[in-house]
Amino acid sequence: MLVNGKRHKTLWVEKQTVKIIDQTKLPFQFKIIDLKNLDDFCDAIFNMRVRGAPLIGVTASFGMAVSINKDSSNENLDRTYEKLISTRPTAVNLKWALDIMKKKILKTDLHLRSKEAIRLAKKISSQDENSCEMIGKFGSQLIKKIYRKKKSIINILTHCNAGWLAAIDWGTALSPIYKAKRDGIPIHVWVDETRPRNQGASLTAWELKNEDIPYTIVTDNAGGHLMHEKRVDLCLVGSDRTAINGDVCNKIGTYLKALAAHDNKIPFFVALPSSTIDRNLKKGLGKIKIEERSSKELSHVNFYDKKKIIEKSIYFKGANIANPAFDVTPSKYITKLITEFGICEPNKKGILKNINKKNVQKKSHN
Amino acid sequence: MLVNGKRHKTLWVEKQTVKIIDQTKLPFQFKIIDLKNLDDFCDAIFNMRVRGAPLIGVTASFGMAVSINKDSSNENLDRTYEKLISTRPTAVNLKWALDIMKKKILKTDLHLRSKEAIRLAKKISSQDENSCEMIGKFGSQLIKKIYRKKKSIINILTHCNAGWLAAIDWGTALSPIYKAKRDGIPIHVWVDETRPRNQGASLTAWELKNEDIPYTIVTDNAGGHLMHEKRVDLCLVGSDRTAINGDVCNKIGTYLKALAAHDNKIPFFVALPSSTIDRNLKKGLGKIKIEERSSKELSHVNFYDKKKIIEKSIYFKGANIANPAFDVTPSKYITKLITEFGICEPNKKGILKNINKKNVQKKSHN
Repeated sequence: MLVNGKRHKTLWVEKQTVKIIDQTKLPFQFKIIDLKNLDDFCDAIFNMRVRGAPLIGVTASFGMAVSINKDSSNENLDRTYEKLISTRPTAVNLKWALDIMKKKILKTDLHLRSKEAIRLAKKISSQDENSCEMIGKFGSQLIKKIYRKKKSIINILTHCNAGWLAAIDWGTALSPIYKAKRDGIPIHVWVDETRPRNQGASLTAWELKNEDIPYTIVTDNAGGHLMHEKRVDLCLVGSDRTAINGDVCNKIGTYLKALAAHDNKIPFFVALPSSTIDRNLKKGLGKIKIEERSSKELSHVNFYDKKKIIEKSIYFKGANIANPAFDVTPSKYITKLITEFGICEPNKKGILKNINKKNVQKKSHN
Repeated sequence: MLVNGKRHKTLWVEKQTVKIIDQTKLPFQFKIIDLKNLDDFCDAIFNMRVRGAPLIGVTASFGMAVSINKDSSNENLDRTYEKLISTRPTAVNLKWALDIMKKKILKTDLHLRSKEAIRLAKKISSQDENSCEMIGKFGSQLIKKIYRKKKSIINILTHCNAGWLAAIDWGTALSPIYKAKRDGIPIHVWVDETRPRNQGASLTAWELKNEDIPYTIVTDNAGGHLMHEKRVDLCLVGSDRTAINGDVCNKIGTYLKALAAHDNKIPFFVALPSSTIDRNLKKGLGKIKIEERSSKELSHVNFYDKKKIIEKSIYFKGANIANPAFDVTPSKYITKLITEFGICEPNKKGILKNINKKNVQKKSHN
């Protein structure tokens, strides 16, 4: 998508070096950094220089490829797998991508592993890009349907950042918005600030500004009120992990918006690549270990002063803080799921049918 | 309540000067300032040096008294009334206090008005203090009831600041907590950060720390997740304006917590002095004009550096922002209301019965 009028992706290979946008510097600085060794990749994922389920998976794949390029032994493969997987416990894409990589690399002769690993990482990356674009295609149909009834500007509420910055390109929740805009649907987006880390205000608003889509940042507290006032036509969020029953684990606070949407009879859509669906997870509620992140994410904020990003505490010294990073939205509060294979009901039947489409598509490719 | 081990109130008269704690400086600095003329009072209310429904009402009363002391004419009374009432449109206490003052001052001879005005302001102040203490007494019974069943630490979630800093002393939502703690009930409070302005993290946490009550600050997004995990036994919030049907207008985000409490079968209590009940308001939802405050409350934060409070922007330049300050929680999501007259159902019948107790109490004083 566009940054200052120029097309960009979040991760790419240039002269055999993996390059990423350091998202911790956004929206103040647009900084590109090189990831050269496994530690660089782990740091990038752990410290959220890259974030968002799809992008984490792709970054981990390239991390494994770079590590295997240095040492293609099974021992290093195991070590690399463990190191990468421990960076973010909730994101199922991470495991999904690493499992694909590991399984295929193990089957490959030692001297061919390096080449195979980079081929696989690139494939996972381009698959993600295609998936996101397809999510946009399917999701935009839902927006159009509402527009055909309303015939005026469509107000969409989104939480956190599930835009192209969370993937390779297009994004998940924002992809239908980008597609609908290209199809001429007038859209305005309510951007939840998304504490802690303010990824809504810092990333989603920045993405939308760059794509010239009208948006307004509001506090995470405001969504319910906006829905009461009928100023939201639909909600559109991403998913970090999706259970087979349709429960969605996403950025903390998603559940509260789903409750408000349900209370106000507003459609609540979740856009997700099928790679976030955890086939081993029968239900999400009470079954997902929620990542507890550093208290500093609440107490400290970044601002930009004299061309430098400065971090300062906004709390009093010694304040007690807890920071659960995700919550689970029960499927009963979700209207539809949008995957790269189409739109489905948020239940086992709908999801399995959706996954089945994938198999049909795969077969037709053979 | 205690500040560094010493008892304080939020507003008091010392050598004929009204003094307040400048709450915009908390939690970094404990600064006491003098309010000497009407402009000082309007500034204090508008810029939220004093905030919270009860304290706004009391501050406005003293503002009127100070203005009447300078000029006791009807013209100045009208001017003062209009000026003060425009400072915060949502808080019904402001109107309530000013209406009492104006009505009684109008009936008073010109040369006696100054004395009468200060007497009335002091009466409103001490009534507020008593009301808050009574709310604590009644509300703590609800906490004790839950404690008798659970027999272990009671986790209470609160939103924004409805503590003694929002009143003269004791507070509304925190008063039952202070009372229960004094009665030996073990309590832990989940403090919503409460964006914008972070009054939970800055004021409520600071109050609780000073009163030695265990607390943990969480983002506004976290409450639903905590309830899912059964880590909240009850919610306790304040009210800026209460409709006769029990709808509660309170700090933006209250509604979302009420929805989550309802979904998880957790009691949701609202503590309020009866002065926040708007007898002219049949219902709250869709009927209350919600104050839209400055976008700077979102984009800018305070931090403490080299003994100075510094304000900086954490958003990118030119970001679009909206800042509705309150929302309405429909009465169906509220378990009980707690006023200075007791506990009541959040509906017309319950509220009228509660107000009736007031009349009975008043009569018995005669």
